[in-house]
Amino acid sequence: MASNPAEAIALNARRAFEASQLVAPSERDIALTAIRTALSEKRDEVLAANKADMDAARPLVEAGKLSASLFSRLDLGKKGKYDSMLQGITDVAALPLPTGQVTFAKELGPGLALHRVTCPVGVLLVIFEARPEVVVNIAALAIKSGNAAILKGGKESTLTATLLSKIIADALAKTQIPSTFVQTVSTRSEISGLLAQDKYIDLVMPRGGNELVMSIKNQTRIPVMGHADGICAVYLDKSADENKAIRVAVESKIDYMAACNAAETLLVNESLVNTLWPKVANALAAVDVSLRCDAVTLAAIKGQPAEAKAQAAAAADFDTEFLGPEIAVKVVPSVGDAIKHINEHSSHHTDSIVTEDETSMSAWARGLDSANCFINASTRFADGTRYGLGTEVGISTGKTHARGPVGLDGLVIYKYVLRSEKTDGSLIADHEKGQGYTHTDLARDQPPF
Amino acid sequence: MASNPAEAIALNARRAFEASQLVAPSERDIALTAIRTALSEKRDEVLAANKADMDAARPLVEAGKLSASLFSRLDLGKKGKYDSMLQGITDVAALPLPTGQVTFAKELGPGLALHRVTCPVGVLLVIFEARPEVVVNIAALAIKSGNAAILKGGKESTLTATLLSKIIADALAKTQIPSTFVQTVSTRSEISGLLAQDKYIDLVMPRGGNELVMSIKNQTRIPVMGHADGICAVYLDKSADENKAIRVAVESKIDYMAACNAAETLLVNESLVNTLWPKVANALAAVDVSLRCDAVTLAAIKGQPAEAKAQAAAAADFDTEFLGPEIAVKVVPSVGDAIKHINEHSSHHTDSIVTEDETSMSAWARGLDSANCFINASTRFADGTRYGLGTEVGISTGKTHARGPVGLDGLVIYKYVLRSEKTDGSLIADHEKGQGYTHTDLARDQPPF
Repeated sequence: MASNPAEAIALNARRAFEASQLVAPSERDIALTAIRTALSEKRDEVLAANKADMDAARPLVEAGKLSASLFSRLDLGKKGKYDSMLQGITDVAALPLPTGQVTFAKELGPGLALHRVTCPVGVLLVIFEARPEVVVNIAALAIKSGNAAILKGGKESTLTATLLSKIIADALAKTQIPSTFVQTVSTRSEISGLLAQDKYIDLVMPRGGNELVMSIKNQTRIPVMGHADGICAVYLDKSADENKAIRVAVESKIDYMAACNAAETLLVNESLVNTLWPKVANALAAVDVSLRCDAVTLAAIKGQPAEAKAQAAAAADFDTEFLGPEIAVKVVPSVGDAIKHINEHSSHHTDSIVTEDETSMSAWARGLDSANCFINASTRFADGTRYGLGTEVGISTGKTHARGPVGLDGLVIYKYVLRSEKTDGSLIADHEKGQGYTHTDLARDQPPF
Repeated sequence: MASNPAEAIALNARRAFEASQLVAPSERDIALTAIRTALSEKRDEVLAANKADMDAARPLVEAGKLSASLFSRLDLGKKGKYDSMLQGITDVAALPLPTGQVTFAKELGPGLALHRVTCPVGVLLVIFEARPEVVVNIAALAIKSGNAAILKGGKESTLTATLLSKIIADALAKTQIPSTFVQTVSTRSEISGLLAQDKYIDLVMPRGGNELVMSIKNQTRIPVMGHADGICAVYLDKSADENKAIRVAVESKIDYMAACNAAETLLVNESLVNTLWPKVANALAAVDVSLRCDAVTLAAIKGQPAEAKAQAAAAADFDTEFLGPEIAVKVVPSVGDAIKHINEHSSHHTDSIVTEDETSMSAWARGLDSANCFINASTRFADGTRYGLGTEVGISTGKTHARGPVGLDGLVIYKYVLRSEKTDGSLIADHEKGQGYTHTDLARDQPPF
């Protein structure tokens, strides 16, 4: 029996997860279709709730307590947004199942087969920003991957999120997936209680920056798959091609400055300080990027158009996620030093080298401790959809379980299934005092159940 | 700069890891050979240190402060033990490299290739019991997988562990792998300091039971791959074969009672209470196993030889890792109830069903939330060597990253390498305002660096 509300929610999720494991996986797609239909039918009701959330948030924006961009993301009534949320469910339903895949299969001896089969992690707790459509998006990914989910969105979207969650639960109630498979909580105090439920919750996924991720990690024994900062760098190597350097540096910085895969740091090989660097600086300045330069790179653009946009960098600039039109610039003697700087200062997210040199490319790909190591390509490619992963649960800056853009296969783990067909069953004694182990590979095409 | 000793150790490990990434992986095997040679040459010195550890521990055993079994495991001078420790290094060196494997490869467009390549996690902190040979074993696994390691063994083996660690560091100093790639610490206070180094340490692996794992999780933001309790069950289904049932129940319980994969619970389908159950009970009693029975199973063996070994179970018996000659017994109405009981009470480690029924097998493999779901086989098979994983780092009772017996591939993660061969590099704008993405699969045989 649950002794507090958080435990009751977690226990409901766990029971729903366990019950769902005995339901055929094809029922998950049926559930997704049911949810899409229900959301389509209740569009007006949802948009009314969303309007109430917006009305409540508007005074906060006017009082300067809520950013305009956050307010804008709250709006589910924007042209095409609701339809695209619905289409997202259909797209997830169409993806291949990440569970039930055999990743290892061996015969231990005649009549004794071992299969390692992917399965859901179990119960997920997902904490995200005030974008109400994320409720639907995460619910779809959880259902497709067979994980029960407890969702907590930003408080500004509470009315919308609560209604979306109710529509999802009502739709699930008509399917074979339990109605408590996806639950929503709306207060921060519920989160604290849930973070103590490590018996029932298997994975916490906080989306929303370093501070949130650290705070969650400090409060829980549950594994955390966090999306922390994105301090990404572009490095211009000795042999960098001018055109590639300018194109990669400019797009990585300005294409979408609020994105976690935007560049915040530019490292320049010392051999380029008076040749390529001023051209790159002018290109960045021309698109209104402020340059926070170390002494060498600052001196090198004296008298250039870029000078007007340049100033001396502070040490902290190299550890800053600007998320705006600033970039920290520093000279380095070699690719090895660039790698060292990035391993020390970056968030191990995405970093790109511009080079024509195979040795530098190899050092980069091997030495850089980043989820995404790019060569002559914009940092903006770091994204599950661009990678062809089908969809993206988030971008993990952790180094266990899943790293970088996380698709549906980042929401599964595996179990080992050992099945004996021998007439008297199988004991280790049969093998270890007798016939030994064969350990021959088996076909991986078919799970054993 | 490091501000305290723990940070200095962690930073040394991080620097060693980063430097090692630029060294050819074949150097890891050269380092393993150098370590084996050095340990072979210093055998007398190591055994002298081990004798000193034993001499210091002996009074503790006599005073009842240290168990005899722990004392026995401390002894590196036992016949064959040192040679088997050396052979272990050779065996690890002979295993295939877990790093540099391509697990996903796509062309995003002509001239733009994405590869997901396995790589080391980074820096491991491994906390283990007072078995000095584990220092060598873990060092070998860490080196083979490219992870730097900080090791902390039980305090009773400090002299031996410190010397082994020094020999390893001296041997590494003559190779291309940094000498601080493997470090040993010897006090508990150093552990507390290290658990705060989440900037430098990527994974903590505590070996040694639930209490240690929980305590570590409470103290750190670093991901923990723990080996907690082993509360394993055998379930006798309605259609269980008599011979299989007796063989599987008896070996699972008594083969090695201190092992985490030994059975602690026996669930009996209610249809078998007066038929198969008394036979199984008598077989267990005959090998001196005490039966802690619920009311139904206790009543059913009245007048049987097993009665002498039976008593009423307390509720807590079903949540207990006995690690000795006791087993908790309970009747259940169906396979579904057996699964429910195990999901609630077990440690999600290893559970075996005895059945002839395909529907029960399928429910078991799908519904049981355990790392190892066995059918008509002894729970004792749950082991990396028996599985043919090559070697075993431990058995994870967690549900993220790696689960069940963990081989070398449980010590790796991956990075994405994106390389453009296009004459002007690659921008997302080229694709999203132009040619789109191809997302065609590439061969996975070759890493791109």
